Amino acid sequence: MKAIERRTIREYTSEPISEKTLKYILSCGQRASNCGNMQLYSIIVTQTQEGKQRLAPLHFNQPMVENSAVVLTICVDTNRFNKWCETNNASKSLNNYLFLNVATIDAAICTQAMAQAAEEKGLGVCYLGTVNYMVEDISKALNLPDGVIPVTCLTIGYPKQIPPMTERLPLEAVVHYEEYKDYTTANIKAMYKDIENNPTNQDFVKENNMENLAQVFTQVRYPKEMNENFSKKYEDYLKEHFFEK
Amino acid sequence: MKAIERRTIREYTSEPISEKTLKYILSCGQRASNCGNMQLYSIIVTQTQEGKQRLAPLHFNQPMVENSAVVLTICVDTNRFNKWCETNNASKSLNNYLFLNVATIDAAICTQAMAQAAEEKGLGVCYLGTVNYMVEDISKALNLPDGVIPVTCLTIGYPKQIPPMTERLPLEAVVHYEEYKDYTTANIKAMYKDIENNPTNQDFVKENNMENLAQVFTQVRYPKEMNENFSKKYEDYLKEHFFEK
Repeated sequence: MKAIERRTIREYTSEPISEKTLKYILSCGQRASNCGNMQLYSIIVTQTQEGKQRLAPLHFNQPMVENSAVVLTICVDTNRFNKWCETNNASKSLNNYLFLNVATIDAAICTQAMAQAAEEKGLGVCYLGTVNYMVEDISKALNLPDGVIPVTCLTIGYPKQIPPMTERLPLEAVVHYEEYKDYTTANIKAMYKDIENNPTNQDFVKENNMENLAQVFTQVRYPKEMNENFSKKYEDYLKEHFFEK
Repeated sequence: MKAIERRTIREYTSEPISEKTLKYILSCGQRASNCGNMQLYSIIVTQTQEGKQRLAPLHFNQPMVENSAVVLTICVDTNRFNKWCETNNASKSLNNYLFLNVATIDAAICTQAMAQAAEEKGLGVCYLGTVNYMVEDISKALNLPDGVIPVTCLTIGYPKQIPPMTERLPLEAVVHYEEYKDYTTANIKAMYKDIENNPTNQDFVKENNMENLAQVFTQVRYPKEMNENFSKKYEDYLKEHFFEK
């Protein structure tokens, strides 16, 4: 798949990924840029059916988990670096908000480099954002120590079929030249027109008895109260298992 | 540059990037995966010398800013989505910790897709982590409204030369199979041996009058007090300009 035409692949054949290909994917992830070459991430590879079955309910039983060839869970990892500091009589300095952010960004960069390496080899991938909702349970399932926080998850396998490309906003909706030009109501209406007119999206509106697509997003798919509950769970987990006490 | 052999490029020729190539890079970023297809990011393109000069001091005058062909500042953007919700009588639900995290990850994924598109076209890139230290000043310089938070920055240009690859930890240091296996002191010492023995790193230790490389990281490059001050600045900015009050 060319990068400019890529699609998320949610259905995979039963063909496994060779050890060589998996190593190539992981190595491309590690080769991507990272802050100060500190490599503040870890990648958990789930390949056994047992392991995938344990993860599946933590990803709300999305079928990609059990049907993929491999599941990668990419985590912020200050534990390894801190242990290196301990053995070198160096003080720990990373378990704060700044480095949670820095290492989260690095973990995502590493993940996308792996996604593209997989796609280059004819594989398809799907990101699972459920990780961010289920940090505590996923950490337990993968035996993550303090200082290690799951960031995102990638399911990988050979595509059963190539679905159509999903729509995007016009490029000029997400790009600003020299400085941010804020949007007028007319801009917004013009930019979202194609997405709103997409038949699948119009079906979502009807199925959910909403007036429009924006309401499907904020009242059905990502309602405020749910988001705030998951926010609190995430913050509580960080206080207990990441930030310095 | 092949993904598995890529290097960060900090020195560029004066050759500009064509409009077509820039559009390709931006389009590959937008084509990457994102949560719910909400596209909660914006990309600010800085191409004028004036714009680069304004940004340079905010990136601690790292020479890549002024010498590159283009600087991209990639931001979390809930402003555009919220404006769409307003025009559709839909409640806002994203200005919380969960979606700051989700959109930060998506912005980083988009950035890495742009980095690889640039490298595919023979360009070189350098990430600037300084963004995370300087969120407030960069936001002002780029005229970012509330709900828009800079995440990372990419300088792009044609490479003046290809530097040697930087070392990495052994792959097995960052990869765990099925579950996280915590590190023993012996593991840590073996894993970091090559990085510690790298002559450039040994020079850093001497120049800084430290006992070892770990101390250079946590006492000189990323000391705790500095990290905590920048953490606080970042959190304060988010409270004022991102989180719902």
